[in-house]
Amino acid sequence: MEVQIAAAKTNKYAVSESGDTLEVVERPNGGVSVVLADGQTSGRGAKAVSMLVVRKVISLLAEGVRDGAAARAASDSLYTDKQGKVSSTLNIISVDLHTGTVVLTRNNPAPFYIAHREQIDSIVTDSSAIGVSRSVRPVITEIPVEPGLVIVLNTDGLSHAGERIGRPMDICTSLKAMLEDQDPSPQAIADALLAEAVAVDEDRPSDDISVVVLKVLKRHGDNVRRMTVRLPINVAR
Amino acid sequence: MEVQIAAAKTNKYAVSESGDTLEVVERPNGGVSVVLADGQTSGRGAKAVSMLVVRKVISLLAEGVRDGAAARAASDSLYTDKQGKVSSTLNIISVDLHTGTVVLTRNNPAPFYIAHREQIDSIVTDSSAIGVSRSVRPVITEIPVEPGLVIVLNTDGLSHAGERIGRPMDICTSLKAMLEDQDPSPQAIADALLAEAVAVDEDRPSDDISVVVLKVLKRHGDNVRRMTVRLPINVAR
Repeated sequence: MEVQIAAAKTNKYAVSESGDTLEVVERPNGGVSVVLADGQTSGRGAKAVSMLVVRKVISLLAEGVRDGAAARAASDSLYTDKQGKVSSTLNIISVDLHTGTVVLTRNNPAPFYIAHREQIDSIVTDSSAIGVSRSVRPVITEIPVEPGLVIVLNTDGLSHAGERIGRPMDICTSLKAMLEDQDPSPQAIADALLAEAVAVDEDRPSDDISVVVLKVLKRHGDNVRRMTVRLPINVAR
Repeated sequence: MEVQIAAAKTNKYAVSESGDTLEVVERPNGGVSVVLADGQTSGRGAKAVSMLVVRKVISLLAEGVRDGAAARAASDSLYTDKQGKVSSTLNIISVDLHTGTVVLTRNNPAPFYIAHREQIDSIVTDSSAIGVSRSVRPVITEIPVEPGLVIVLNTDGLSHAGERIGRPMDICTSLKAMLEDQDPSPQAIADALLAEAVAVDEDRPSDDISVVVLKVLKRHGDNVRRMTVRLPINVAR
């Protein structure tokens, strides 16, 4: 099998810095984890918060700490640092080669989506952001790694896209249409969802938007790990 | 402009775990850094060493520490931890949006390659691995971010490929041929170099091999950051 993970990320309109932070790290016992945080508000302040959260989580994961414990630690750390006044959403998606599962750790009111065969489930279990109290706990979902599995994770910029103009986006329906029509790559899914959100926001996203898509493929080609990063830049020179 | 970074990574033949560790992190002041370490020997022990080094470097970079200082700190940290008995190579390649440059920090006897227009330079300045003494210092090269720039970085698995059978690989020539013929994506360059190394090693790589390729493109499409990870897995179930 091959696990493919893709991410697409853009900023709120007219804000130069995204308040979302997304990092991918290798797990010490095999596999990878994607950590996504969305700091309260937007711009530089939000970025500092989401970086603090993601940095805490990845350093713990790299030491072998379990995902749920890392999320609780990040929450306590943020709570202590900001006296409970600043929240952040946090999602961790881990491919654990040890257990052969995908582990989803969620501190985010926004749902995530699991597609397998013709079925798309939207996971909406109540879940609160981190940093606001001493008793925050993540919602953890564990799913076997199987060919055909597609998981979509996003920050609330995607869920709330289009609300300003009263035309909210229906992520589940968009995802269903894509998966029925063809066998899209995770990057194609992430790009299409992000493009739709930007379109319903009339090309001026009202929040930072990040989309992560994980897909498990049956094919097993060479034994090579691959990674690509694409970074649009404006160098003022 | 758009900066694209691609990596391809495989294990030494018959060793389940690569001793190379590669991580990409966002820089707190904008841009990204790729950190690549190759721990001495191979397998589990080497992996622990390279993870220790990379983890140290990324945590410092995330705090805003400069690349050269992070490399020295990682060297001292490894020296202290292993009493100077274990070495590791270390390369950091950073796209610094603040200065509009690519900063290459190198503690690795293996050269790296810079291609711009028809010119390919192989940077071979003497540089030693980290962790072996208290006076290790990195070689730092800074290059303006310009369309057409291609940088290739690798662990010694690539430089030494084919030596066992007396048919060493000439990375510079292979790279030149690729760049003259077409306008390959960084992933295509990384994949082709890795495939050639595996071929001259007769499909049984005599060391872990990691290749990182950075390319600067002129085109500026949407303002979306993208990332893809592809992870071949064998789940024993």
